[in-house]
Amino acid sequence: MADTHIETSLTLTPRFDANGLVAAVAQDAETGEVLMLAWMNEEALRLTLETGRATYWSRSRQKLWRKGEESGHIQEVVEARIDCDQDAVLLRVRQTGAACHTGARSCFYRIVGADGALRRAD
Amino acid sequence: MADTHIETSLTLTPRFDANGLVAAVAQDAETGEVLMLAWMNEEALRLTLETGRATYWSRSRQKLWRKGEESGHIQEVVEARIDCDQDAVLLRVRQTGAACHTGARSCFYRIVGADGALRRAD
Repeated sequence: MADTHIETSLTLTPRFDANGLVAAVAQDAETGEVLMLAWMNEEALRLTLETGRATYWSRSRQKLWRKGEESGHIQEVVEARIDCDQDAVLLRVRQTGAACHTGARSCFYRIVGADGALRRAD
Repeated sequence: MADTHIETSLTLTPRFDANGLVAAVAQDAETGEVLMLAWMNEEALRLTLETGRATYWSRSRQKLWRKGEESGHIQEVVEARIDCDQDAVLLRVRQTGAACHTGARSCFYRIVGADGALRRAD
């Protein structure tokens, strides 16, 4: 938390975790809706910035995952941001179709009650 | 990805990682601004839901971190959501003061250019 250089630097210096990953949040650029949280390794981040299309690292499949490559539900990156300690990325995107593989617009389709019961938001 | 029960269940069943954590995104409930990304262990998640005040697990300090306990910059939880595979939490919050310890409203105060150069958003 006290690494001032990381916080003020104007050079991208991502701090990948022990698995070589940073967390990435995708947010609808128009509505502000948070669509999903996924992971990026160095190559996924580089490809995302270079191509303007969100690319993640699939932890379950252990491979690069160019969002929408199978479903067509691509994410066009309008703006990328990095957080204070450079271990989380925020993408503001234009989402084609559903962000979630379940077909929901957002992966966060369930609201958690105080008692731990879930209910669908839609 | 194919664990349908986790995706459709209406019971909170968080899938904590090897370190016992889930990622948590805090979003301003009024403006939609993504404020920060932090981590929760089981106790932090329970306390957040029970008290309505965001509580995280500090990976750097290895202790519970009741957001704002030192700074006064608390987060009142308006709504909590869980994602499809139940390993990420989204909090819509009323943020008092700055979410970021640097004094910025959001931790995501730098925009990443295609060439990797950063610029401040504010």
